[in-house]
Amino acid sequence: MALTAARIPPGTLELLPLEQIAFQRLLDTIRRNFERFGFLPIETPVMEFSDVLLTKQGGETERQVYFVQSTGAIEKAGAGLPELALRFDLTVPLARYVAEHEHDLNFPFRRYQIQRVYRGERAQRGRFREFYQCDIDVIGKDALSIRYDAEIPAVIYSVFRDLAIGPFTIWLNNRKLMRGFLEGHGIADVKQQAAILREIDKLDKRSQAAVTNTLADEEFNIPNHVLADIIGLITLGSRREEGSALACLDTIEQSYMQKLPGDPSLMREGIEELREVLILMRTFGVPETHYSIKMSIARGLDYYTGTVYETTLNEHPQIGSICSGGRYENLASNYTKSRLPGVGISIGATRLFWQLREAGLLDAASSTVQALVTQMEEAQLPVYLALANELRAAGIATEVVLEAGKLGKQFKYADRAGIRFVIVLGEDELAKGIVTVKDMHRQDQFAVPRAELAKVLRVELEQTRAMPA
Amino acid sequence: MALTAARIPPGTLELLPLEQIAFQRLLDTIRRNFERFGFLPIETPVMEFSDVLLTKQGGETERQVYFVQSTGAIEKAGAGLPELALRFDLTVPLARYVAEHEHDLNFPFRRYQIQRVYRGERAQRGRFREFYQCDIDVIGKDALSIRYDAEIPAVIYSVFRDLAIGPFTIWLNNRKLMRGFLEGHGIADVKQQAAILREIDKLDKRSQAAVTNTLADEEFNIPNHVLADIIGLITLGSRREEGSALACLDTIEQSYMQKLPGDPSLMREGIEELREVLILMRTFGVPETHYSIKMSIARGLDYYTGTVYETTLNEHPQIGSICSGGRYENLASNYTKSRLPGVGISIGATRLFWQLREAGLLDAASSTVQALVTQMEEAQLPVYLALANELRAAGIATEVVLEAGKLGKQFKYADRAGIRFVIVLGEDELAKGIVTVKDMHRQDQFAVPRAELAKVLRVELEQTRAMPA
Repeated sequence: MALTAARIPPGTLELLPLEQIAFQRLLDTIRRNFERFGFLPIETPVMEFSDVLLTKQGGETERQVYFVQSTGAIEKAGAGLPELALRFDLTVPLARYVAEHEHDLNFPFRRYQIQRVYRGERAQRGRFREFYQCDIDVIGKDALSIRYDAEIPAVIYSVFRDLAIGPFTIWLNNRKLMRGFLEGHGIADVKQQAAILREIDKLDKRSQAAVTNTLADEEFNIPNHVLADIIGLITLGSRREEGSALACLDTIEQSYMQKLPGDPSLMREGIEELREVLILMRTFGVPETHYSIKMSIARGLDYYTGTVYETTLNEHPQIGSICSGGRYENLASNYTKSRLPGVGISIGATRLFWQLREAGLLDAASSTVQALVTQMEEAQLPVYLALANELRAAGIATEVVLEAGKLGKQFKYADRAGIRFVIVLGEDELAKGIVTVKDMHRQDQFAVPRAELAKVLRVELEQTRAMPA
Repeated sequence: MALTAARIPPGTLELLPLEQIAFQRLLDTIRRNFERFGFLPIETPVMEFSDVLLTKQGGETERQVYFVQSTGAIEKAGAGLPELALRFDLTVPLARYVAEHEHDLNFPFRRYQIQRVYRGERAQRGRFREFYQCDIDVIGKDALSIRYDAEIPAVIYSVFRDLAIGPFTIWLNNRKLMRGFLEGHGIADVKQQAAILREIDKLDKRSQAAVTNTLADEEFNIPNHVLADIIGLITLGSRREEGSALACLDTIEQSYMQKLPGDPSLMREGIEELREVLILMRTFGVPETHYSIKMSIARGLDYYTGTVYETTLNEHPQIGSICSGGRYENLASNYTKSRLPGVGISIGATRLFWQLREAGLLDAASSTVQALVTQMEEAQLPVYLALANELRAAGIATEVVLEAGKLGKQFKYADRAGIRFVIVLGEDELAKGIVTVKDMHRQDQFAVPRAELAKVLRVELEQTRAMPA
């Protein structure tokens, strides 16, 4: 029979078991922190009706959407889009979910969602067509206190502290502040404001000169002195130290807001919001070494209306933002007349994992299998199985070698598989009522009375867990 | 603006947060047990190349497959199938995975995989087009000891004991035994054997008379006395008590195998395999109250070649098998020339959850949120946030009420949300250095010194966890 080549579609990330374990630990840490802050899990179907998913037709999004149909549907297909499509983010499904289940949910509705999303991106190294997003959002009914905008960075801080992937900074800004600044300069058209903010947001990827050049372009129609003021503002940001963010905000108020030729009220509102968030963040216990304000953080999406966040690794700025989000006025206006303001963030876990691996920041994971009971004497298999049951009952993940084979080969298997404890129970050990344990991580070997094995391994494993990462 | 109706595609299961928590606990329990037995996690992309997924063309499977394409691909589409399709099970992706990564894997390769699969089933109550499968498989290179066939029921036992959804039975049989029996009766054609076994497998859903009638049909061409012998065999099974399974196997050997008119060697091989599995299962510690042999268990799939398993809930036989699988000769013959025998099972978690809910077997889940810090005095928010941080540091999932509101409303929120501990810290408590805790589960209220709150709640939570389910 002719063989079919075993291969996965481009743009998908498939991992070997030890890598998968490292990735799973990343997701578990994120989930644990989301739950610690009182967020509730939901999952939504990977497919949505196309009309639900694509309420804004004809955009960039639609070109990237994967449509789904069964063979029957393909045969019948007439004009128009297929009925079903794969979600491209978790925000549209959240909006649909909240609108659909509005009367069964408690508000403020605090949900987390860790699922895969799909985008028909151009195939490119480090670009994924299938990837995990880890999202939290707090959704209010009619209104939502600005205090939730200060809770979000507390969650971000807790997640990335626990992930232990090096020092990081949470960057904050406020879209009202930025739009108000443009308005005070006479740029009142919301679409033009949005276009300018999209350019400003590129400042991390493009040079200041390039962004200035684009904004100086005729199409934006910005007077020269205003452009200079914009460039002045967007290069402002606080240092990561106590009081710096609030001091920087005072500077912005005095040097930019108070000098606006036009109405400063929207900019003032933005400054007030950002100030309240910064003050509350202290109360939430986020250390000022870990956050900062930066006026070039604007988020490309017009969807955001107030506070915006990005998060970067201090020692790996090239990775870009690893956790972004913000405040929005109305989550689900496409599906319900209820006003549902919210604030949230998203971590692109697949891309983050890939980048950490590329940057050499991932430690070699130890296996989920913690102990391997070797097979010294085939006749003693019942003893080995009973021992494994004892270990499992003590919560130690244990594998038993069931096929007879040389001990050296069994050790090699444990080594390649990243299993920490190898248990040997030969005639000698049996006679003495002990077992020999080889600790493959510490390259150490010791003997323990058989009855104490589970307890001893538990202690060893807990000590390792307690060690700083 | 016209609203789009918020709705999900038929055949998908979407849960409210408390239900999602219950479902997540089900998946977590399954995963914990898979890991406890030393299985390693993998995940595969939800999309595979169509030619990889559909190596057997034109079958029932293909009609149920969902194809995936981006808008561009639809426009370009010529004849032939779309390039990508959604997986319909986890076995084909496993075969592709093992073939693709063969040289990077350790054999025996013990993997678990908990992911969603997609089938364009006819829409029907309780039938899902998107559902979770939780699979384990052990894959050998060239050979795999029959001992692994006895380990699988040990995992099944461990999973369903921990799930605590009532008494259950693991049913075993062996396809060699069944095929050998037919061969010994002169039915040598493998396709005819498979067709007969498919009919036998329906005995759980159809009456004995109906199955007998079908098998008596001309198309099967079974002589009457042989048919009587088949019916005799397939109605045999052991009781769930010590020694019964092995005794029943002895009966089958004496009353059926030894009386075969033709060659009994394949049936003998099957009996020997099943006997070895049954003996080893004792060693693995599976209580004989929880398994049994049953000759009508044949599994519809020709894919299985030896041991086969099903699992049912004793008090809910109408639910059918909740965990099935078996031994196969060669996992990945479509993708590699390596011989990769294996044994595995699958739990259809979405259907299981849905059925448990329908049968009223699911307890109301408590929330993942364990404590709610109420907002008695708005001015004390910093104190509430500090208290929440202490609780979170102690591993207690805690939510703080950030919007000012009546205490009664806050209690109602906790009640509806299934949060167990409601923490009250008013002027009175502040003056005394205590907090008032309302235990919503026990309808109980108590006061503790503030510094001891985290410790006290931890003890309460651990006691609850330790209670028998």
